[in-house]
Amino acid sequence: MQRWPTLIEDHSGAEPAILILDQTRLPAEPVMVRLDSLAAAAHAIRSMQVRGAPLIGVTAAYGVVLGLGDDVSDERLGEIIALLAATRPTAVNLHWALARMEQTLRKSALVERRSAAWQEAKTIAVLDGEANAAIGRHGAELMAHLVPIKPRASRSSCLQIMTHCNAGRLATAAHGTAIAPIYALHSAGQKLHVWVSETRPRNQGLLTAWELAEAAVPHTLIVDNAAGLLMRRGEVDCVIVGADRIAGNGDVANKVGTYLKALAAKAAGIPFFVAAPCSTIDFDCPNGEAIVIEERDVAELGAPGIPAHNPAFDVTPAELVTAIISEYGVSAPGALASWQSP
Amino acid sequence: MQRWPTLIEDHSGAEPAILILDQTRLPAEPVMVRLDSLAAAAHAIRSMQVRGAPLIGVTAAYGVVLGLGDDVSDERLGEIIALLAATRPTAVNLHWALARMEQTLRKSALVERRSAAWQEAKTIAVLDGEANAAIGRHGAELMAHLVPIKPRASRSSCLQIMTHCNAGRLATAAHGTAIAPIYALHSAGQKLHVWVSETRPRNQGLLTAWELAEAAVPHTLIVDNAAGLLMRRGEVDCVIVGADRIAGNGDVANKVGTYLKALAAKAAGIPFFVAAPCSTIDFDCPNGEAIVIEERDVAELGAPGIPAHNPAFDVTPAELVTAIISEYGVSAPGALASWQSP
Repeated sequence: MQRWPTLIEDHSGAEPAILILDQTRLPAEPVMVRLDSLAAAAHAIRSMQVRGAPLIGVTAAYGVVLGLGDDVSDERLGEIIALLAATRPTAVNLHWALARMEQTLRKSALVERRSAAWQEAKTIAVLDGEANAAIGRHGAELMAHLVPIKPRASRSSCLQIMTHCNAGRLATAAHGTAIAPIYALHSAGQKLHVWVSETRPRNQGLLTAWELAEAAVPHTLIVDNAAGLLMRRGEVDCVIVGADRIAGNGDVANKVGTYLKALAAKAAGIPFFVAAPCSTIDFDCPNGEAIVIEERDVAELGAPGIPAHNPAFDVTPAELVTAIISEYGVSAPGALASWQSP
Repeated sequence: MQRWPTLIEDHSGAEPAILILDQTRLPAEPVMVRLDSLAAAAHAIRSMQVRGAPLIGVTAAYGVVLGLGDDVSDERLGEIIALLAATRPTAVNLHWALARMEQTLRKSALVERRSAAWQEAKTIAVLDGEANAAIGRHGAELMAHLVPIKPRASRSSCLQIMTHCNAGRLATAAHGTAIAPIYALHSAGQKLHVWVSETRPRNQGLLTAWELAEAAVPHTLIVDNAAGLLMRRGEVDCVIVGADRIAGNGDVANKVGTYLKALAAKAAGIPFFVAAPCSTIDFDCPNGEAIVIEERDVAELGAPGIPAHNPAFDVTPAELVTAIISEYGVSAPGALASWQSP
């Protein structure tokens, strides 16, 4: 199967552009879409053509590149950053990437700003890839130790992992966050199977199934409602998810439905892991109560005429999180405050 | 709005028939379908044209009527019962209704079996309606007391109730089980609002929204994933669901996803009520482990080509159930064993 990139630079034209894999058309038809303007980049983030906290950050960085035309003034830069920052409220990587872009560009001479923007956006993408790889290593070490914990007579003794939403390579510029350890274990020959939760209303579970199939990782799709039953039955050894924002106290905002899986994992006595690059940790945010939860268009529910409500994220309290896996290693959620941005 | 019945007798033709509201076509188009054979009745249950534990029981009873043609022998009766009993494995009301039909018909003379079958099926429907009404009264009394418990400054102080799947009038021959108390409170002038969970993969939440709109009860549709967030935020005063089978120890099998809501209710400190007629209690079943969970066609997930798994129910342990509301009153789940079938 051809491996479609999530985002690549396009230097074929006179003006800056990037190509993105349009995730709203997956898994039906993989199509690369060309973005050559700030408006197009903002639209891609808002409409979830690109999604996943890390990839949103990378796309926003390139959005700054696309926004810098003849006018590269500080004022224009401020406008660009403000427009991109307003696309989606919950993922903090967006703000992290924009803050890096702004800091670097304000220090660079006006005549060098466009090339500096390209360079910094590429750096953000490369850092994301490196963080993904490190998360994969740390997570794989942690999860490999789970194998013997729950021997299962009724089916093969492979490691049973559940995930929610898509925190795989499609959510990043490289290998993924929550799925990175799965890829690392699979590459190392570990037998495993992934329970993929559908993730209504946007069905990002189908994206996870698509990329796991691409990598030949055994998997099974379930409706979100089935997660509790499977855990209670002992069919799951651990849950691993990504994050859109982690508060300083270890509370985790992630795709809506994550909290229910964390409750079920706790009740079943299995670990609940959160995998995210350090850029997802918002040390300025004291706890989950302070995280803004994005409310999206109720049209996403596909039930016209029925009054509806569509929060896109929820908050899992730190006490339900067994460990946070970042590029720096494995951490207890309550220990974050002590290590700030290394 | 016209109030479509869920099931009515049709004596217009020479052969016995019933009309059912085809729930697979709701909410898009309410259509009554004529069933005039055992095969048609079995198909209606299996394909979920009729669904909801009580209505499945009533439909199965009428299925016996439809199956009794010229041959009304004990042998034929046994075949009919066996075929209907195999349509769906989890709801115990099905077996309760079939056992009543079998018991009554075996005692009746062969020449009277067809009329006795009509009579007994009607009795089962009438009993369901009476049980619904009593559940409505008992549940309303219980829930009315919740009103002052959680005053909410941020929105109107109305009672906020969450439900899952459809345990309303569409799931029964009359007023519903879990929704019956809601209708009773609404009729009594209590201000309330219902959070309706979508209930993937079959989206029975849309049926609940449809019938609440019909009755002018304020409601809001959410994806199943959003239930935890809303409870954690204090937006829900209680959860009430139906049941497909209640074990002797009070464990409750109900539509998949119920268990996750029960966990979230416990974590939020709000009551979790189960409303069901006594015919849903399986005193021969010691606990939830012994309940067979129906596995349905993965085509229901609507993701062709992706390996999938589709359990239709889950089990909520008795310790997460605040109270069981039956036609006989309100009971602690652990107290069931002491009262057997009154």
